[in-house]
Amino acid sequence: MDVRQQKPYVIGLDLGGTNSVFGIVDQRGEIKATTAIKTQEYPDVEDYVKASVDALQIIIEQVGGIENIKAMGIGAPNANYYNGTIEKAPNLIWAKDKVVPLAQMFSDKLNIPVAMTNDANAAAIGEMTYGVARGMKNFIMLTLGTGVGSGIVINGQLVYGCDGFAGELGHVTMRRENGRSCGCGRNGCLEAYCSATGVARTAREFLQTRDEPSLLRELDPEKITSLDVSIAAGKGDVLAKSVYDFTGYMLGEACADFAAFSSPEAFIFFGGMAKAGDLIMDPIKKSYNEHVMPIFRDKAQFLISSLDGASAAVLGASAIGWEI
Amino acid sequence: MDVRQQKPYVIGLDLGGTNSVFGIVDQRGEIKATTAIKTQEYPDVEDYVKASVDALQIIIEQVGGIENIKAMGIGAPNANYYNGTIEKAPNLIWAKDKVVPLAQMFSDKLNIPVAMTNDANAAAIGEMTYGVARGMKNFIMLTLGTGVGSGIVINGQLVYGCDGFAGELGHVTMRRENGRSCGCGRNGCLEAYCSATGVARTAREFLQTRDEPSLLRELDPEKITSLDVSIAAGKGDVLAKSVYDFTGYMLGEACADFAAFSSPEAFIFFGGMAKAGDLIMDPIKKSYNEHVMPIFRDKAQFLISSLDGASAAVLGASAIGWEI
Repeated sequence: MDVRQQKPYVIGLDLGGTNSVFGIVDQRGEIKATTAIKTQEYPDVEDYVKASVDALQIIIEQVGGIENIKAMGIGAPNANYYNGTIEKAPNLIWAKDKVVPLAQMFSDKLNIPVAMTNDANAAAIGEMTYGVARGMKNFIMLTLGTGVGSGIVINGQLVYGCDGFAGELGHVTMRRENGRSCGCGRNGCLEAYCSATGVARTAREFLQTRDEPSLLRELDPEKITSLDVSIAAGKGDVLAKSVYDFTGYMLGEACADFAAFSSPEAFIFFGGMAKAGDLIMDPIKKSYNEHVMPIFRDKAQFLISSLDGASAAVLGASAIGWEI
Repeated sequence: MDVRQQKPYVIGLDLGGTNSVFGIVDQRGEIKATTAIKTQEYPDVEDYVKASVDALQIIIEQVGGIENIKAMGIGAPNANYYNGTIEKAPNLIWAKDKVVPLAQMFSDKLNIPVAMTNDANAAAIGEMTYGVARGMKNFIMLTLGTGVGSGIVINGQLVYGCDGFAGELGHVTMRRENGRSCGCGRNGCLEAYCSATGVARTAREFLQTRDEPSLLRELDPEKITSLDVSIAAGKGDVLAKSVYDFTGYMLGEACADFAAFSSPEAFIFFGGMAKAGDLIMDPIKKSYNEHVMPIFRDKAQFLISSLDGASAAVLGASAIGWEI
């Protein structure tokens, strides 16, 4: 292969507590080959990397060998872009109380450059590389899942901050009085309201404090999930819809503050909640325009990720590989 | 002069509603020559630029002519960096309801590149060029004056956003219920509490709602300024000190949210309020560490601008000239 020619593929690894999903991806975001291992089956990180590389060898051969692969990108919890480490990730069996230099470990085995960042940053880079943010220089990605994550792009660059941990917009304080307790140990964070767990909690609160009938009353309150709320709202359930209004209202308030920071051309939403479409996007936009400084009103676009949910995390991770 | 050699000076213009102050500045931030005109004496912007250039000619000659000058930087209200315009600045007689291409007008007359941004951004660039932020790639400048302005530096670049108006941290919402009305037409903004006007307002509120004796009670409440509060606090006045505690507490809360955004290595404070030193910085730091995500605790420095207050605005403006 001509060394001056760009190698056609990158490897993406979506590293979760349960599964590790690998994909080999081309420049247009097409996944050419994929494989997976169970993260939690390997209590020792050396064994984890070995099992990963063994699984990877098979799909690497499918695309013509490692010579065709430019780099590897990893999206992982508590990943630090600057030094390629995972730092004390409670959900990763081999990184609970440790700092693990995972990027270097993969790089040593595969002999290609490896870079790593957290899932939300990977999603933002994925969107910029393959998705709706192509060509954008300033946007904010908000991932609405179990938690609320964010990836911020300014002047075409991901914002990592002085320590690699910038972009924790799920943990700006939205309610300073009587704020809900958050997993981070503080109160009133955006995540405590607008994550999937937050939405389920809002539904439970509304069921308790309101009298109106609702499909959600047929369920065990403690077991209600954001999916239940979404299904009920889709059927026109008024209480379930008001849960989305409440959630969208707060997301709009938050985005109004984010605009004062970086004035992005778009806010892009990803994750289970974003699938609700207009149900969540309409209240977000309405609340945004109510709360934002007049100078920013009606400027930013509000978009839903265009990456396929099932493969988005692998695509996002792979996109880091092109940036190296 | 050897054209390959860097020209040794830049011009800085601190453009205010009352005065326009010009300085010729070297790379170490030394002001070599200075002059000024009255902004409001020229209702027509053509006349304003002509008077400015006439005044400038004299000091340009003092440093050996325009060949020695690399560029001009302007710090002005409502200035847009991207297109070099001033957009509807209520305090500028010739730009009240207009968009004025001031950078181009100066560039045409002087035959050097001219760039422009708002005062707070200029202060941030000034601090990065000549002050305490030298060598820093990620920091946030907060200017505590009549209003609260901000200049955000990420990856060594000023954040202008998609439209040139990013960095309005004085207008993030700090109190969502019963928030004070703000000059921007909204409620609860940081500026409504932590500007000089906000501090005077806090003092008036405390005088009304508390019984304790205070030196401030000798003054006409409607005429109390932040300077009065500062003087009283300096004398050990308990109520005046508690005004600083209140203000610092909120600034700490705000900085905690800003850390979640861009994880800066430093917050730098500029303006009258910052002169209070530990009186304001101690409560800011305390509140910051109470409110910030554990991962950011004790990481950022809290600094006071090292630029001389009287010439800081001219220095900041001039620093834009080096960036062109």
